[in-house]
Amino acid sequence: MKFLHTADWHIGRKLNGFLLLEEQKDVFEKLMTVAKDEKVEAIVIAGDLYDRSVPSVEAVSLFNDMMIEMNIKANFPVLAISGNHDSATRLDTASPWLKAQNFHLHTKLEQAMTPIVINNTQFYLLPYFEPFHARQYFEDDNLRNIQTCIALVLKEMAKTFDSDKKQVLVSHFFAAGSTKSDSETPLEVGGLDSIPLDMLEVFDYVALGHLHYKDAIKENGNVQYSGSLLKYSLSEEHQEKGIRIVELQDESVENQFIPLKPLRDVRQITGSFKELTSPEYYEKINREDYVAISLTDTAIIFNALNELRQIYPNLISLDRVVKETKQEKINEKEEELIQLKPEVLLKNYFEEVSSSPLTKRQEAWLEEAIIQNSLEK
Amino acid sequence: MKFLHTADWHIGRKLNGFLLLEEQKDVFEKLMTVAKDEKVEAIVIAGDLYDRSVPSVEAVSLFNDMMIEMNIKANFPVLAISGNHDSATRLDTASPWLKAQNFHLHTKLEQAMTPIVINNTQFYLLPYFEPFHARQYFEDDNLRNIQTCIALVLKEMAKTFDSDKKQVLVSHFFAAGSTKSDSETPLEVGGLDSIPLDMLEVFDYVALGHLHYKDAIKENGNVQYSGSLLKYSLSEEHQEKGIRIVELQDESVENQFIPLKPLRDVRQITGSFKELTSPEYYEKINREDYVAISLTDTAIIFNALNELRQIYPNLISLDRVVKETKQEKINEKEEELIQLKPEVLLKNYFEEVSSSPLTKRQEAWLEEAIIQNSLEK
Repeated sequence: MKFLHTADWHIGRKLNGFLLLEEQKDVFEKLMTVAKDEKVEAIVIAGDLYDRSVPSVEAVSLFNDMMIEMNIKANFPVLAISGNHDSATRLDTASPWLKAQNFHLHTKLEQAMTPIVINNTQFYLLPYFEPFHARQYFEDDNLRNIQTCIALVLKEMAKTFDSDKKQVLVSHFFAAGSTKSDSETPLEVGGLDSIPLDMLEVFDYVALGHLHYKDAIKENGNVQYSGSLLKYSLSEEHQEKGIRIVELQDESVENQFIPLKPLRDVRQITGSFKELTSPEYYEKINREDYVAISLTDTAIIFNALNELRQIYPNLISLDRVVKETKQEKINEKEEELIQLKPEVLLKNYFEEVSSSPLTKRQEAWLEEAIIQNSLEK
Repeated sequence: MKFLHTADWHIGRKLNGFLLLEEQKDVFEKLMTVAKDEKVEAIVIAGDLYDRSVPSVEAVSLFNDMMIEMNIKANFPVLAISGNHDSATRLDTASPWLKAQNFHLHTKLEQAMTPIVINNTQFYLLPYFEPFHARQYFEDDNLRNIQTCIALVLKEMAKTFDSDKKQVLVSHFFAAGSTKSDSETPLEVGGLDSIPLDMLEVFDYVALGHLHYKDAIKENGNVQYSGSLLKYSLSEEHQEKGIRIVELQDESVENQFIPLKPLRDVRQITGSFKELTSPEYYEKINREDYVAISLTDTAIIFNALNELRQIYPNLISLDRVVKETKQEKINEKEEELIQLKPEVLLKNYFEEVSSSPLTKRQEAWLEEAIIQNSLEK
């Protein structure tokens, strides 16, 4: 089984006000070229097809065209799920008709339990869901934590595993770390919603969406993010974007990341106003890129924004390097705060606003609330 | 050929704040019962499937269920078009997949030119469109008037008429009157957008949507509105709602209107507060209906709205009969205004707000603007 793994298309996304439909159309065509060249047997899209639950009419139109291109014209089986950015109900429109043409689009938790079998592989398509849906599906009001829900879902899936076939999970969640270390950090912020990698070992490959960075999982195993199709914020500047070609063989799984060059890149450029506005500089680069400019100047420059826009039409932001010293201080302070436990943060905050420490009774309440909260998660 | 003709479903419609999804689900089930009992060969839906271009997620969910029921479970061929309330692009989602299962959903003008052939009948599905679309399709910038556009469309359709088959047009516009009388009323408000009935004589049957009243066309011919599925405003109180069963025979066309009883009716009730709140009165009627109450009392009644709501939970409005005298005067005034020509209306208005008449130059401008406007329409 050889398939293409992609995710996080976010059709209709804007980057600092610039609508990226043209870039999305372009990169989709490049994806199709790879799919055809590699002769894949299926295309897997691991959620966040649209950027918003109610996409614009232009986004709907582009996505409709893409679906026709992939499945009707090029005849690829498609295995897709809804992500947290999609409206499951809206995306579900016409899914029984799509299915008849080998376009499997799962938007409901219960659909995940029946694998889609293509050649020698069972694909389990698990859309993004909330513990609320699992409480309904498993008829268990105690399900509050997404880890517990996923564990139950995987147990249910395992019942239909066919030992003569390969198993692939397609899903959209935050996978990181391992169950082994979890007990040590019960109250750490951010850690609770992640799915430990070792829970996913039962699958030959796990095709994930959600995180936009293809190397979000450092371990070079069979649980992988494809990353988003494009750089969707300046923070993704240094992330290579593309798709994965996954090949399940008898004894091994190979996955190869194939970069796709965007129509316009997203990047930071830094320099003096004089330098950045000189043809010697800008004639050597792609001025159509989405650029965030940091000026090194300290003097006032009149009309800098407009003058730079003349040269860089897709200017997404403009600031000064000198600000960075102040920004660095804020960053340091933030770093310190992140280290603190929630109870310490709250005590400090209380003292700051009320000028008196918490009473013993208040401290007890706080402790109880934090424990309660950790249980609910 | 025997088919069911329905239109103007307006899924997601609200009536004075009350969401009608439950009524829509109920009447759809009744429609399905008729379709099965009558063993129709197709279901024709002549536009306005949704009430809004961006329907709520609940409306999308109900409509998805209906589509599955009609076409996947009951296996009826479906012939549908988008109306002026629908977003053509959004509704178009997955239409090539629907088509593969005999669900023909046309949302673009160009799709109208290729008939869908079922047994002995050619169905031409012409969605709601604007002159703008016709200008693009026919590459003629002079098309400004919907009558002219439709005439061109019909001419185009006629090229593919098969004399061995019957021809049915499915569309969504305002049909009324005849070409013969049109030249006499070039500037009348409202008349310009209508399609004269005699233009449509080439078809064996024309299944229309747009007007909610099944008898909107008084002539008992082969051009008919099915009317909306439900009463969507108090003004439709006395309109019977339902669907048409159309049967094309060798020499004749029969169409029978079949009323569908709604879960809750919409109606006006008039009486004194004492009368309407007495069990002898309200126990005899369906208090769950959407009622607009007119009180005949003249004295002040404290808390009337809340007390009436206790008895009539779906109260859509409350007013007093005594107001009617004032309202009648307003209605009379409105009637007078409607009679006036646009230029007279504007002159009167100008004098009212500026206390001076139009100058000769202003009068000339006005005349020019009105002529220009009539040409553009």
